[in-house]
Amino acid sequence: MSQASTSAGEQSMDAYGWAARDSSEFSLPFISQEGPTVTKISPSKFSNCGICHTDLHLVKDDAGMTNYPVVPGRSRKGGTKCHKVQSRRQGCVGCMVGSCRSCKNCQQDLENYCRKMVWTYNQQYFDGSRTFGGHSDKIVVDEHFAARFPLNFALDGAAPLLCAGITVYSPMKYFGLAEAGMHLGVVGLGGLGHVAVKFAKAMGSKVTVISTSPSKKNEAVEKLGAGEFLVSHDQEQLEAAMETMDSIVDTVSAPHPIIPLIGLLKTNGKLIVVGPQIFNPPELPYVPLIMGRKLIAGSAIGGMKETKEMIDFAAKHNITADVEVIPMDYVNTALERLARGDVRYRFIIDVANTLNPPV
Amino acid sequence: MSQASTSAGEQSMDAYGWAARDSSEFSLPFISQEGPTVTKISPSKFSNCGICHTDLHLVKDDAGMTNYPVVPGRSRKGGTKCHKVQSRRQGCVGCMVGSCRSCKNCQQDLENYCRKMVWTYNQQYFDGSRTFGGHSDKIVVDEHFAARFPLNFALDGAAPLLCAGITVYSPMKYFGLAEAGMHLGVVGLGGLGHVAVKFAKAMGSKVTVISTSPSKKNEAVEKLGAGEFLVSHDQEQLEAAMETMDSIVDTVSAPHPIIPLIGLLKTNGKLIVVGPQIFNPPELPYVPLIMGRKLIAGSAIGGMKETKEMIDFAAKHNITADVEVIPMDYVNTALERLARGDVRYRFIIDVANTLNPPV
Repeated sequence: MSQASTSAGEQSMDAYGWAARDSSEFSLPFISQEGPTVTKISPSKFSNCGICHTDLHLVKDDAGMTNYPVVPGRSRKGGTKCHKVQSRRQGCVGCMVGSCRSCKNCQQDLENYCRKMVWTYNQQYFDGSRTFGGHSDKIVVDEHFAARFPLNFALDGAAPLLCAGITVYSPMKYFGLAEAGMHLGVVGLGGLGHVAVKFAKAMGSKVTVISTSPSKKNEAVEKLGAGEFLVSHDQEQLEAAMETMDSIVDTVSAPHPIIPLIGLLKTNGKLIVVGPQIFNPPELPYVPLIMGRKLIAGSAIGGMKETKEMIDFAAKHNITADVEVIPMDYVNTALERLARGDVRYRFIIDVANTLNPPV
Repeated sequence: MSQASTSAGEQSMDAYGWAARDSSEFSLPFISQEGPTVTKISPSKFSNCGICHTDLHLVKDDAGMTNYPVVPGRSRKGGTKCHKVQSRRQGCVGCMVGSCRSCKNCQQDLENYCRKMVWTYNQQYFDGSRTFGGHSDKIVVDEHFAARFPLNFALDGAAPLLCAGITVYSPMKYFGLAEAGMHLGVVGLGGLGHVAVKFAKAMGSKVTVISTSPSKKNEAVEKLGAGEFLVSHDQEQLEAAMETMDSIVDTVSAPHPIIPLIGLLKTNGKLIVVGPQIFNPPELPYVPLIMGRKLIAGSAIGGMKETKEMIDFAAKHNITADVEVIPMDYVNTALERLARGDVRYRFIIDVANTLNPPV
């Protein structure tokens, strides 16, 4: 463990975190962390931080984009020091910490599609410094990119809303996927999928979970209240469900066929991909799209305005993620378990109580 | 040439046409044709018939779906004998001659997406008879699938509206591609593309034609009034136009990259495919879609209600296709020229004056 002085606007501070130094064994020793220098800063001590599949990809450098050492972690529930978010609310930081604030996307509250958007970790900030994520005790962030949770939220389960939650909420709203009377398919019952089921039910939609794992049926139907459960490799079930869904949210990035999914859609149906098959993409299924005026679209997290709207919606309907809280030093094991899908549905690191930098 | 009696409801008649007997040399000798037997029939003598790329695919059996002998030809401008369409209007038949009339698609005026929709040729009708297309002197068709043209239409240029016209008009309306103030890209300046430019301009949209052929620039800009012209393999032009278009209609079925097209779209942009790359599809471009909440959709012709709306729109704005009128016995040469793109923009067979069955 080392320690460094951080320049953050007029302040400087020390930050401590866990970093991956290479991809070999999810090794996460302590490193010193520099926060990015921004004009408006909101130093905040973290209490919780989620772990998601993107963290895993980054730690393993699956896309060849990782700059080691990397401090993963986003969708964090922070402390109460954020300037704008202090009164009876707890500040939180999601997947992005910066954008240009002037382009057309930013002007339309779509900072998430700004070409200069800065991800919370493994990126270069505008001042040239690197961004480090939530597997640490502090962060500096432009207040525009901090939100606030109501105090009645489950402390742990709220954090993943800032990543998994907004990732599914945003397309559900923009593409109108889960309005009352509609039938939404949710592919994959993981971190994103289980939150999608909760949101869709709260929006009044019928939900069918589509999964490779028959063992998840009970969980999907009994616990989460999905209307139906479809095993994606069961031809009989697939055929019985052909052309019954208005839309599908696909949260699975592991290779899987998409033509059967398009077959499940009614005419004018929408397949929204939030878990892209980046490394082995299927062919563009022209004929199934054309023969039913169907569409495939992508969506990435959401803008800050919509993130705040999502938090309000989640609070109103008492929606949080189902999580397993772990101590900081369990993170290696957690990443191994995540790699084999052994978590329901998100690990949350208890940063406040288990990452204790020296005084 | 042979002759056969046709059972068509209470009537029977002889029909004469040109058919392809095999794919070898676009050989199109006369054959006898049986019209499908339907309850409501509207026998009509044809005056004109278009030729499009789908005819070429069918004659050559590119998709392995052709049942020889095949009589190609759709988007036909017929005579005046249709029962419902007789007064001061000319009847016409497009790409389909039947559908179940009871499914959800049919109930929503989307007969074109009915799973039992019957194409105008090379298909089996409900009574088991085969459908033969417009390279003949007569057709029997359920009146629901006949429309009517106003008499002030250019006799020849109107026919392709029933195929090329509705194919681009329908997605332009449904996906809102060409509303006032928008910027639409049209990929391919052929039969579909040149009509798309005319419609988009009439709808108040800015139009950029995207083509592999620099030689078409003058035609696109000077004659059709496209605002801009983009050579699709010119990297400099592509980069200058990145993220400037609200949507793109892709009319080209020959292999071509689609990632650059998605790059031309703004955030929330729409790429609508009406000329599918069926035989060599590209990979589904997940990342470009996700990083801008963009969509790829398909669309196939249009329902009868929308077809009639399209005809009204075309009549109001005096829009017809640019055509080259040919005699019936030029059809082999026409198909050869079509195969090498040597037509601006549609061949129209003068059926009335050049196909004369024996009395």
